[in-house]
Amino acid sequence: MSHKSERTKKNIKECSKKLFIKQGFNQTSVRQIVHMANVAKGTFYLYYETKMQVFKELVREQMLKNFRLADNHFDYKHPSLDQLNYFIDKIVMLMETNREEMFFFHKESTLEIIIENRLDKEVIHQMIYPIERFIEAGIRKGVFTNLDSQLYGKILYGIVHEMLESAFLYEYPAKLGVIQQEVKFIIKCILTPSI
Amino acid sequence: MSHKSERTKKNIKECSKKLFIKQGFNQTSVRQIVHMANVAKGTFYLYYETKMQVFKELVREQMLKNFRLADNHFDYKHPSLDQLNYFIDKIVMLMETNREEMFFFHKESTLEIIIENRLDKEVIHQMIYPIERFIEAGIRKGVFTNLDSQLYGKILYGIVHEMLESAFLYEYPAKLGVIQQEVKFIIKCILTPSI
Repeated sequence: MSHKSERTKKNIKECSKKLFIKQGFNQTSVRQIVHMANVAKGTFYLYYETKMQVFKELVREQMLKNFRLADNHFDYKHPSLDQLNYFIDKIVMLMETNREEMFFFHKESTLEIIIENRLDKEVIHQMIYPIERFIEAGIRKGVFTNLDSQLYGKILYGIVHEMLESAFLYEYPAKLGVIQQEVKFIIKCILTPSI
Repeated sequence: MSHKSERTKKNIKECSKKLFIKQGFNQTSVRQIVHMANVAKGTFYLYYETKMQVFKELVREQMLKNFRLADNHFDYKHPSLDQLNYFIDKIVMLMETNREEMFFFHKESTLEIIIENRLDKEVIHQMIYPIERFIEAGIRKGVFTNLDSQLYGKILYGIVHEMLESAFLYEYPAKLGVIQQEVKFIIKCILTPSI
């Protein structure tokens, strides 16, 4: 793809994202997207067959971003509880600086599309894999309790995701800042070998 | 209410429950209920205004049963981790012996009705209150880690509920029997003071 094509595609994608977040996927039409991107309708169809295709690409990009965030963050050679704590802080910071995007990805209608298109398993796997690897590294080094790393990758991801999500979206059972600390405490309880 | 009326009402309620579980709330009509209960349509309306009213009564009864189960189980004077473990076992046993009912209460359409009628907060509160009280008792006796009992009542309920539910419904991240043990381990990690 030429530089110009890439710029055009990126522009279409970014406008779609803005509109999806602002008014929802179902409420957004290709007409609105091309209007915002200031391109002809035909130009849209050069790059995408449907707005669903744009949506899928956006989800996959977000996933890859999440994966990289975790994978670049963890030093698998020197695993430590501190790294997990910083990781929690990083996620919370990202949640707070991308509030609209976060709300969009957790809207019922968005989740429905993700589940219908079977993107949820990919999403989860991309996030769990680095955590699993990090726990495994920590167990091998004797830094973490000797647990089933595959199982606990999933369990810890589930607990952290649920708690932060619920605090972020509903301030339940407490505000995000409070739950941020409790999540760290719980991870420490589970991963630190009791004496 | 006379004995006979009570029996009739109970019969209507139980037939409704069977039909709701078997074919869903939306797919069940009052006509089907009275047919199964072998009563006239007018008899149904002596006791209930709508099938929704029966549904709400069923949910409230289930809630009360859950509350009593927890409240009778816990010995608030002698709190211990063992009691929590037995409680988990009891819940898992009940899940397994009431599979159809469990699946019904977790069906999307059922949950929608529960949420629309704002029954979810009641449901959650009824379950959390005994746990909160038990944790508080344990902290006071020095058996459990010194935590915010109100917050941790909610957090522990959330973690246990999520993990057991997901294992029961989807065998994710592992089968119920495996998760049953891991839930106990996690509770122990969180509630046992580290030395």
